[in-house]
Amino acid sequence: RINGDRLWDALMDMAKIGPGIAGGNNRQTLTDADAEGRSLFKTWCENAGMKLGVDKMGTMFATRPGTDPNALPVYVGSHLDTQPTGGKYDGVLGVLSALEVVRTMNDLGIKTKHPIVVTNWTNEEGARFAPAMLASGVFAGMHSLDYAYGRKDPEGKTFGEELKRIGWVGEEEVGARKMHAYFEYHIEQGPILEAEDKTIGVVTHCQGLWWLEFTLTGKEAHTGSTPMNMRVNAGLAMSRIIEMVQGVAMENQPGAVGGVGQVFFTPNSRNVLPGKVVFTVDIRSPDKEKLDRMRAKIEAEAPVICDALGVGCSVEAIGHFEPVTFNPKLVTAVRNAAEKLGYSHMNIISGAGHDACWAAKVAPATMVMCPCVGGLSHNEAEEISKEWATAGADVLFHAVLETAEI
Amino acid sequence: RINGDRLWDALMDMAKIGPGIAGGNNRQTLTDADAEGRSLFKTWCENAGMKLGVDKMGTMFATRPGTDPNALPVYVGSHLDTQPTGGKYDGVLGVLSALEVVRTMNDLGIKTKHPIVVTNWTNEEGARFAPAMLASGVFAGMHSLDYAYGRKDPEGKTFGEELKRIGWVGEEEVGARKMHAYFEYHIEQGPILEAEDKTIGVVTHCQGLWWLEFTLTGKEAHTGSTPMNMRVNAGLAMSRIIEMVQGVAMENQPGAVGGVGQVFFTPNSRNVLPGKVVFTVDIRSPDKEKLDRMRAKIEAEAPVICDALGVGCSVEAIGHFEPVTFNPKLVTAVRNAAEKLGYSHMNIISGAGHDACWAAKVAPATMVMCPCVGGLSHNEAEEISKEWATAGADVLFHAVLETAEI
Ligand SMILES: NC(=O)NCCC(=O)O
Ligand SMILES: NC(=O)NCCC(=O)O
Repeated sequence: RINGDRLWDALMDMAKIGPGIAGGNNRQTLTDADAEGRSLFKTWCENAGMKLGVDKMGTMFATRPGTDPNALPVYVGSHLDTQPTGGKYDGVLGVLSALEVVRTMNDLGIKTKHPIVVTNWTNEEGARFAPAMLASGVFAGMHSLDYAYGRKDPEGKTFGEELKRIGWVGEEEVGARKMHAYFEYHIEQGPILEAEDKTIGVVTHCQGLWWLEFTLTGKEAHTGSTPMNMRVNAGLAMSRIIEMVQGVAMENQPGAVGGVGQVFFTPNSRNVLPGKVVFTVDIRSPDKEKLDRMRAKIEAEAPVICDALGVGCSVEAIGHFEPVTFNPKLVTAVRNAAEKLGYSHMNIISGAGHDACWAAKVAPATMVMCPCVGGLSHNEAEEISKEWATAGADVLFHAVLETAEI
Repeated sequence: RINGDRLWDALMDMAKIGPGIAGGNNRQTLTDADAEGRSLFKTWCENAGMKLGVDKMGTMFATRPGTDPNALPVYVGSHLDTQPTGGKYDGVLGVLSALEVVRTMNDLGIKTKHPIVVTNWTNEEGARFAPAMLASGVFAGMHSLDYAYGRKDPEGKTFGEELKRIGWVGEEEVGARKMHAYFEYHIEQGPILEAEDKTIGVVTHCQGLWWLEFTLTGKEAHTGSTPMNMRVNAGLAMSRIIEMVQGVAMENQPGAVGGVGQVFFTPNSRNVLPGKVVFTVDIRSPDKEKLDRMRAKIEAEAPVICDALGVGCSVEAIGHFEPVTFNPKLVTAVRNAAEKLGYSHMNIISGAGHDACWAAKVAPATMVMCPCVGGLSHNEAEEISKEWATAGADVLFHAVLETAEI
């Protein structure tokens, strides 16, 4: 069994870096707080006897050697970056549990045939630089390094500049590493495990996603002296598109979600009708056909809505992954571990995207989940119990042990 | 007749300060650019032989003495501050035409019984600090000085701090000055004069306004893993309120407008449903009963929309003025001047709010308007012709002359 107290202390220590305003964290990718978190994590890895490699995307790989020089490593990880108003566990739990797996192996003097590589992927959240899971996406060959380096935050700073600024451009070619297996442990970020009173989610699939960034072009004009019939109101068009997206998601129930989290009005002045409105639609489904149908419907209806108002409409897909089926052998290893340890468990489909989804493109991969209170995530009030955290890390430990072979 | 070339040159010189990004201006109130504009204007006033007084709101009053020591001054002015993406004429035309009136009197050696006071009101736009027409509102006793000093910009800086920072806190008590009359010349900011092919708008009324700032409280949650039926989606509620406001404005046609120019999502991340949405509804009508009915309907319907989504809804009226009827004698003076000078003219109701609306509370007041291309304002592409600018300044000159008495 892993050491739940030590894991919890590590979580609480990491949470001191980049504190939020309401008990959570703001440790967005490539900020000074991210750099501070990386340094602490590096120290912990080195103290656990691991050697750190860093790739050109800044992803951190800390290796515990195996006994067979020809055996590919088992990778175990997640991400340390957070949302602007994020929780203490989303991502962090997976990275620090991977570290805890190694610490426990050290404690118990366990040697594995396959090396273990504790991994911290850069920019999983996609909050500062879209898309999410950017570094694992480059690793899996889904994006070029140039594409990733050119991504811009809302202030116009690029990923490449900011990675350099915080001093974490590594030497390794991205994706050069080959994996025997990839495991990721994560909080569910949804309500199912808690509602079903299960401690462990055996993650069989991950739903797919489209991020559709709309740019609507209206006519900046005075809110007082511009008659209603002369308005080219991009904000009104946006409102109608948000309502339409809600409708598309609802008519595809069950097994679909859709919403808008980010909106920019320009010039964003109370007495000016917006000349430009940029916002991102997030739609997801575990069913590829349904997901693509939703996208097609939204992209067909939005221009009709805009045309009726004289508003210009352009859309760009700035994030996408297809639904993922995780590796059946690894899924079984997770289920067996939960069973053996006596934790209640159920199969679950991940509602959020994870680095495991991209890793699954280039290696056998799967995930372990634990519940989170009220299904709440991407919220500073995100909460889990130490018991849940410990149970998932235990399951991770045993599944990794089985796969890395003693 | 005034000197149209000199007026135009002054407009173009002022437009060099705080340039926008598309040919207009960003000279928002109490910024460094505002301070620079004030200095230039001060120099021009002093070169025209006027003495400058400044009140505690930073409003600038440049006086040309009259011949009767007991006669109250005729005030002529507008504002030099702009929207974030504003035009070169909104407000500026009125201030610099008032200066041109004095320059012309100097050229022609005209002495008036009443002093002339060229006025630049602070923070007319209300873009940076709501409400609009803040300094004239304090002058007219509508707001306290403390209220004004405490107004915050989106970064949390207060009006009081920023006024001090740019060095324009004057000595004079706000509202201590008494006016014989107040004239304001402004671009129409709407399409009517151009459509009717008239050069001069004789402004008889100004429509009233409510700014209703809504704060909607949802639940920050993951856009992917939060099922549709568990969402507390403040962004969706906002969309429905924007649509409802549009409906309320449309069902009150003619003689009503309504819209939303400013929206803030928190945390404004693509994969987080917003926990907080703040936006301001701007509604206007020349008919007080209609305006108040619209407000009542919006404030009654918004909570119903929010309740259906579980979203919290609070609303604060952060800007208001009632419809204004301008002084009939001054209105006649404007009409007579246009008539005498041979400019085509018509009566018009101002769609935008102006400092004249607050001045009208404490003095006889009225306005002169000229057309603007396409009715466009609060847009960097705002445009007028030199002929229009000149015609309005001529009318202003003659109406002021008649009122200030030679
Ligand atoms: N796990 C997680 O929140 N990832 C961010 C990408 C997503 O929005 O699903
Ligand atoms: N004239 C003008 O644009 N004033 C700003 C206040 C308003 O929105 O009417």
